Amino acid sequence: MKVDAMRLVISSARKFINMGVLSRLWNLVKNFHAADIASLMNHLIVREKLTLFNTIYEKDKEKGGEVLSELVPEDAADMLKELPVEQISEILQGIPPDDVPPILQELPEDMQNAVLSAMEEKPSEDVKELLLYEEETAGRIMSPNFYALNENTNVSDAITAMQLEGDVESAFYLYVIDDQERLVGVVSLRQLLFARPNTPLKKIMTKEIISVQTETDQEVVARNVAAYNLVAIPVVDTENKLVGVVTVDDVIDVIDKEATEDMYKMVSLDTSDRVQDSAFTSIKKRLPFLLFSLLTASLAPLVVKNFTGTIEKVIELAVFMPLVAALGGIAGNQTIAIMVREIAIGQIDWISARKALFKELMVGIGNGIIIGSILGGLSYALLGNLYFGLVLGLACIVNLFVAALVGTLIPLLLKLLRLDPALGSVNLLTMCTDSMGFLTFLGFGTLFLTYLA
Amino acid sequence: MKVDAMRLVISSARKFINMGVLSRLWNLVKNFHAADIASLMNHLIVREKLTLFNTIYEKDKEKGGEVLSELVPEDAADMLKELPVEQISEILQGIPPDDVPPILQELPEDMQNAVLSAMEEKPSEDVKELLLYEEETAGRIMSPNFYALNENTNVSDAITAMQLEGDVESAFYLYVIDDQERLVGVVSLRQLLFARPNTPLKKIMTKEIISVQTETDQEVVARNVAAYNLVAIPVVDTENKLVGVVTVDDVIDVIDKEATEDMYKMVSLDTSDRVQDSAFTSIKKRLPFLLFSLLTASLAPLVVKNFTGTIEKVIELAVFMPLVAALGGIAGNQTIAIMVREIAIGQIDWISARKALFKELMVGIGNGIIIGSILGGLSYALLGNLYFGLVLGLACIVNLFVAALVGTLIPLLLKLLRLDPALGSVNLLTMCTDSMGFLTFLGFGTLFLTYLA
Repeated sequence: MKVDAMRLVISSARKFINMGVLSRLWNLVKNFHAADIASLMNHLIVREKLTLFNTIYEKDKEKGGEVLSELVPEDAADMLKELPVEQISEILQGIPPDDVPPILQELPEDMQNAVLSAMEEKPSEDVKELLLYEEETAGRIMSPNFYALNENTNVSDAITAMQLEGDVESAFYLYVIDDQERLVGVVSLRQLLFARPNTPLKKIMTKEIISVQTETDQEVVARNVAAYNLVAIPVVDTENKLVGVVTVDDVIDVIDKEATEDMYKMVSLDTSDRVQDSAFTSIKKRLPFLLFSLLTASLAPLVVKNFTGTIEKVIELAVFMPLVAALGGIAGNQTIAIMVREIAIGQIDWISARKALFKELMVGIGNGIIIGSILGGLSYALLGNLYFGLVLGLACIVNLFVAALVGTLIPLLLKLLRLDPALGSVNLLTMCTDSMGFLTFLGFGTLFLTYLA
Repeated sequence: MKVDAMRLVISSARKFINMGVLSRLWNLVKNFHAADIASLMNHLIVREKLTLFNTIYEKDKEKGGEVLSELVPEDAADMLKELPVEQISEILQGIPPDDVPPILQELPEDMQNAVLSAMEEKPSEDVKELLLYEEETAGRIMSPNFYALNENTNVSDAITAMQLEGDVESAFYLYVIDDQERLVGVVSLRQLLFARPNTPLKKIMTKEIISVQTETDQEVVARNVAAYNLVAIPVVDTENKLVGVVTVDDVIDVIDKEATEDMYKMVSLDTSDRVQDSAFTSIKKRLPFLLFSLLTASLAPLVVKNFTGTIEKVIELAVFMPLVAALGGIAGNQTIAIMVREIAIGQIDWISARKALFKELMVGIGNGIIIGSILGGLSYALLGNLYFGLVLGLACIVNLFVAALVGTLIPLLLKLLRLDPALGSVNLLTMCTDSMGFLTFLGFGTLFLTYLA
């Protein structure tokens, strides 16, 4: 929707909600796609959201459920928790089971169990089963609804069986299992459409199936779907029995989330921090990281403290020292970004890590020499002191080398420690480039003090 | 593939290539998925890549084409340009037309035309048509192969017609057009499978179709596919005639690419910079940005220069000034990251921008007061000078406010100027937080000089 249209829709929706003319509200939104209604809701306050949601849900339960699935789980929970438990249960059992856990988890703890017990048996069981798997694994994000039939079924029986099972949302494949319910093949609906009715599935199925296990990390699931160009990936248990399917729309959500996480973790930001949060919430979320930054940033003053004598003699050192630190930080950020991103999309593994380190060091030295020479030359022209130019240039070269070294090693070390390669990496880097920048610059300055003062 | 297995495969492949035992090389890789072969190739040098590719292509042209499609276009071109033009043409006409332009563009200019003219008429036309559309638009990344039939066709005729057309790779929908070839509906293959044979398509088709135009930006295409949970989106021309389809695997590539770009642009890195590049190439790519950084980073020394008198009197100012700047930079980075990311995934538009600015300013003030108080208190405890603590604390508060202001405005202004919201944003921010940090800290220091010295 265009901005202008959206602006009009928001103000109309608001007006109808506040005037209580819900039939006009319904007329306004009834032809909108659920995703558009969800983005409209982003502009409303909780009370207004709830009125809009209730209006839709009363008129069209299915559409109401779709809207709920499209909302950010936090927002969905914020809205739902204003309703009685029975109503929450009724609403949640109407949406795909894999969309329930993320919303459920955002509800107050005591409410979670109450909601689960008030749900009907089948959906409640489905959700409880998903909750058994750890967060951010294939088991947690998979859908338990899919088409699966025995390999000896023929095509026409398969179509009838699928028809009886009813419409499975976003199903593009029919999975084929053996007598022990193990996954043995896959048939695309396209293949099914073109096959002769009496062919058994095992004759037309693709036997090279790419599957993941329930405990596979969701990021690995996403990378598999992306690498092999799939629209869905089957999830099996330890006995290779098919238990669920992760569809590509969920994979896109994972990829978006991981990209956000990488960027946020680089700059030490809580991954749940959002523009829509209240200022108070964001202050609370960011404060711990800032306190940690206070700690990492305190190394630089500790270094500078040792050189106050030198600075007092050559005050120009204080003037130029931020420049040395800043250039190191900028070059290091470049290296960090490249490492974090290439690790994330699977382009760097342990085999290529050493090559990457060597290459980044070369880049650090190369650019260090160029930038250092320019900077040294400029400062010589400006201040007329050759030794000052030399000290500045040298410090710059060393610091760009340090930036390359640290910028490559931090993400690799974090990965080795099984932490996120991006985690606070920019903070750690700034700590190193700031303090090393000051140490080399002021250190060289002290060495050449007689020529500078 | 696991790291250990990959390591073994790489060394075996290398050995077979260098010994020239190509039949064993083929036996090694013939059952691998094209994506796995492509990632194996990432570890080989150009000459080895070419041998492996030729071996596969000779044994199985289709697989060879698949491998080529899976390679990063730059790498694919690097390899192909070693071959005679006729062979390149033959290879390229065997892969999906939408995979050709990215590879073609990486070939030397004179080679591009030669390759195109050496291709057969149909594939050459297909590729030339795609090349008519601008880069990074729907027209450029769409596939010209899809199923489309008239609305009056009945289901059984539709299936026959599709069957005659042959297999269309990753087709999950049948698009429905009217007598003027305008897109009027869509039928999923699942619906087709379950429908009665004599039903006309217009009876079962979904009429609310989400489509994009040929000139739609690829990022907008990707956001639509993600928002509406599609596996393919139809592309129409200005007359609403169906001209192509963008599939979800291409959308995932776009999303990955855009996430990389946002992160890289934030830290002033060329988006084509890759770990696999040679050091020399990366130096060349990063140097312009570092020169630009030299410029932005030079503002801070210009500020400090004005306060050398104050620093000479109170040397502790030089010790603590990096801390004020660093904390501003860190807090500002947080704001930038949140803004860039939420703009990218479409969560911030002009309607919510003002709210976001106000909120970030509140966060800046809030965290500024907390961090400033802690820092001021600590330095008072350490140095025993109340005024020094006050100056440090105040400077910190002001700088965190500036960081929030600048961190919100830079991405928004860049967007307003129709530039990428991430473009060099961290550089610009550091310029502001460094210089403002020094200005406020040393400025307050000068004001309270009599109490500090």
